Formats: sequence, structure tokens, C-alpha cells
Amino acid sequence: MTRKQREAVDALHRNAPVHPNPTLAEQRAGFAGALSRPGPDNVAVRETELGGRPALDLTPATAGRGRLLYLHGGGYVLGSPGTHTGIAAQLASRARLRTTSLDYRLAPEHPFPAAVDDGLAAYRALLDEGVRPEELVLAGDSAGGGLAVATLIAARDAGLPRPAGAVVFSPWVDLTLGGQSMSTKKDADPIFTPEAIQAFATHYLAGQDPAQPLASPVFADLRGLPPLLVQAGSNELLLDDAVRLAARAAADDVDVTLRVWAQVPHVFQNHFGHLDEADEALDEAARFLSVRAEAGREAPGAD
Amino acid sequence: MTRKQREAVDALHRNAPVHPNPTLAEQRAGFAGALSRPGPDNVAVRETELGGRPALDLTPATAGRGRLLYLHGGGYVLGSPGTHTGIAAQLASRARLRTTSLDYRLAPEHPFPAAVDDGLAAYRALLDEGVRPEELVLAGDSAGGGLAVATLIAARDAGLPRPAGAVVFSPWVDLTLGGQSMSTKKDADPIFTPEAIQAFATHYLAGQDPAQPLASPVFADLRGLPPLLVQAGSNELLLDDAVRLAARAAADDVDVTLRVWAQVPHVFQNHFGHLDEADEALDEAARFLSVRAEAGREAPGAD
Repeated sequence: MTRKQREAVDALHRNAPVHPNPTLAEQRAGFAGALSRPGPDNVAVRETELGGRPALDLTPATAGRGRLLYLHGGGYVLGSPGTHTGIAAQLASRARLRTTSLDYRLAPEHPFPAAVDDGLAAYRALLDEGVRPEELVLAGDSAGGGLAVATLIAARDAGLPRPAGAVVFSPWVDLTLGGQSMSTKKDADPIFTPEAIQAFATHYLAGQDPAQPLASPVFADLRGLPPLLVQAGSNELLLDDAVRLAARAAADDVDVTLRVWAQVPHVFQNHFGHLDEADEALDEAARFLSVRAEAGREAPGAD
Repeated sequence: MTRKQREAVDALHRNAPVHPNPTLAEQRAGFAGALSRPGPDNVAVRETELGGRPALDLTPATAGRGRLLYLHGGGYVLGSPGTHTGIAAQLASRARLRTTSLDYRLAPEHPFPAAVDDGLAAYRALLDEGVRPEELVLAGDSAGGGLAVATLIAARDAGLPRPAGAVVFSPWVDLTLGGQSMSTKKDADPIFTPEAIQAFATHYLAGQDPAQPLASPVFADLRGLPPLLVQAGSNELLLDDAVRLAARAAADDVDVTLRVWAQVPHVFQNHFGHLDEADEALDEAARFLSVRAEAGREAPGAD
């Protein structure tokens, strides 16, 4: 069954309409049209504000006390909590965690480090409103996965307590595009070209160093970060971003799990309901987040 | 709590008695004395034979229909099913899988590829006695983890059907000793020196190429291998063997999970009952094996 599902997902991406030289507005609209999926019925969606930025509050009917901060993908240029309601609400529902999905500032209007500043401000705001760090978890996909890790680093460097864990789906963590998979997975990746990824980096960096740690956490010192779960598909140019993030974390004494599913694309989790691997990955991610948020709830300060 | 446990385990290893220039017999006896732990009461231990080699049959009281082939560690030079009864029986009990632990031939008496020949013969013998590949799983630690992967490769190359999955604990998969952790984790590793590992490689290879795929699966083509779970500690010279095996598997479209626990040593799973990480890792490994063996049982031929 699942081979047919994988082929259907691959074809869906390869047959996506291509606009030659789209404007930024067209790109954003196309991205929203291709990705947006509604959340499940049992998750209440409400507009809110967090750390000075708009956000979506996703509250599952069965939510416990923990909290999830979600950071959407889109190359730091596209996307919003609205385009990622589906995937974030799936996580919220499966993990039974109230979730806040942040509308961080995008490039090129707001280049690096605006997104990281917003991620850190949101993290700080959650602590300020009384969420205990032991019950707080982060998640993000693609650029949002990179931003989640950058936020963890920034929070550590700001002296803030660390959260209970983080999950990143197909994280983009190397803005130098240095992974081997950037060439070896060129035919296998149904979504990206290296040029498209480079264009995102160019917008976001606006001439700044692509190798600096908060832009490319694969080059960061990750010591002191909480347990990480890194998920990726083997059909991605960004596969080696995931692999090298896990390698860096392990070298830096961070508890880390890397899970790679064969022959599925970038952020395949968004195909929940149509692709067994997506549901399996979301369930694993939800389990990881809820176990850690609950361990913090039951044993504060345990290490 | 767990920090104290980790420190106790580290001290235990660092304070192990050192014999200057031990004979091979002294090394084997010391290894057996340091590692051997009995299995739990609910696992029946019986001497048997598999593929022409002695073996231990470990049958938990609650065993279902699947089967686990276990390959012990010891640098291809030390150890036996007897030294690894504890860890293998823990897996058998937690996964509820009848387990056969193979007494493959050791170096220097029997250099490469004797161990791989024995692993392959054992795998073939299990199929011949009617175990369905969909219900068959492999596991191994250290050199036994490398041997498990080599056996998977040899079985694939021999045209045999693939098993349902494999778990490797701190696998030794690079006999060129090429991992960065071979230097970066020198102080952190309480068990090994690079020289000690090199001595094992020298015995096993007896002058043969250390980079050949069945000796160093990190350089092998892993396409077609079943799902792998790779576990390691961050306090090991061999950390990068685990990381690079997972990277290679992902690049080759193998479903793979890498899990690294911070600040625990090589094959920390053998400290079950004294170290929370060990019990957590064994439970995760058992879940991985039993889920896959059971999926095969329920959906034969599913892909």
C-alpha cells in the first residue's frame, strides 16, 4: 500500500504548477494554496499574539497543561501559521498539547536575525506568562525547524531555562547549502532545486554570513540543548541537514534521535491521512513531545 | 538521579583492573568477568547449534512466533553468547521474542570473513528451519552490531529475503578507525583507547583491507536493507561509527533511526537495572524489534 502512496505524493509534487518568475506575492499565494490544510475538528483555532507578533492558538479538546511552540516552514520567506494549521494542529491533537504557532517576521522584508529575534521573544513570552520550561516543547518544519534550533540556542545564550524538548521536521540548518545530499538527491527530491533553496538563503541573509550559528545551527555549539527529535525523508536535498544536525547534537552531548523514512519527500508529515509514513511520523513526534512535557510536569528539575 | 547513575557507570569502567600485556586467554577471561550478567528468571537458556556453530537459545516464557538472532560484541576477538546472556536475554524478554545468540568464530584464530560467514550461515539456517523472514529480526552490540549489518549485506548479496529489521548497539562499522570521535571523544570514553580498538582490527583483518564493505559496513552500499535502529552513547570513541552508519543508511534509502544518549559509554545497555538510560534503550530496542516482527506476522509481503 505505502509504495503507491509514496508514488502518489511524489507525483503530486512533481506535477505542481510552476509559475515562471513569480512575484513574491505570487510565490506566497502559491505556497499557501499548495500546503494549507485544515486542522482536525477537535482543535479550536483562535488568533492571538505572542511576544509582540501575531500567532494562532491551537487548543485540542483534550489538552493537558504543557505547551507547544510551533514554527512554520517556508524558507524564511513564505508561509504563516495559517498555511501550517493542518500540520501544527495534528501535532497539537496527537500530543494533546495546547499549541501556539508563531507568525514570525519574514524575509526579504525582514532579513536575519528578525525571525530568531521573534522566536526568542515568543519563547520568553511563554515563560513570562507562567508556562514552566519543563512543560514547554518546540517544533518546526523546514526553515521553521532551523528556527526552532536557533531559538533554543538563542534562549540558552540569553540564560533562559531550557524547554523539555524539540521536534524538527526536515530542518533547514545549513544556509551554506553544504550537504552532500544537495547533489546526490537532486533527482530524488520532487520539490526543490538547489537554486530555489539558494534564493531563500539570499533573501534571508541579505548579504550576511551564511555560516553563522543562528542562521545555520549545523555549525553551532549545541551543548546544553534539550532532547531533540529530527525527522526527514530520504528523498530530499536537505537530508544531510537533518543528518548533520543529529551528528552535531550527539557530538555535543545532546540526547538526540534521528529518524529517516525512505523515499518520502521534504516535510512529508504534511501528507497526513494520505501517506502512512506521515501519520507514523506525526504520532512519533507527538509521543516524543508529550512524554517530555509530561516528564517535566511530574518530576520538575529532574536531570 | 540519572546523573549519579551515569557517574557511577563511568567510574566503574575507569576503575576496571588493567592487566599489562595480557595474554589472549587473560583478555577473554577479563572480558567475561567484567561483562557477564545473568538473564532474567523468565528466560529459559539452553545450549543449541545454529548453522554449524554453537549457540544459546534464550526463550522467554511469553515468547510469540518471531525470532531474534543476536550477535555479541568483543572486537571480533573476545566474548561469547555466555558473556552476553544478560543483554540478549533482556532483549528477548522485553521483546517477547525467542532469541538465538550465535557463537561465531573469533579472531585471531579465525580472521575475517569467518565471523561474517558464520552470521550468514546462521541466518540461512533460521530460514531453512522455517522461520519466515518477515518475523525474523537481528540485533548485536559493538563488533556484533557491525557483524549484524555485515550479515544483512551478505544475505542481500546472496539473494536471501530480508528480515524485518535490525537493532545495533554502539556498532563498530569502520575498521579504518576513521571517525572524528576517535579523537574528539578520547577523554570522554571511559572504556577504549584508539590503540585498543586498532589491536582488535589487526587481529580480525590479518592484513586484509580494513575498508572492504563486509568488514566496515559504513563504506558499504546499504540499499535494500530492512529498517535499522542504531543506538549509541555520546561518551564513545565509536560514536561516529553509529552516526555515519545511520547517514549511509539514510542516503541509501533505508528506513533508519539513530538514537544517541548523552554522556553514557559504549554499549551502556549492559548496565540495565542500574542506569535508567540502559533500561530505556533496551525498551526502545525491544519495541522496535517486536513491532517489526509482529507487522511481518500480520501483513506478509507488505511493503
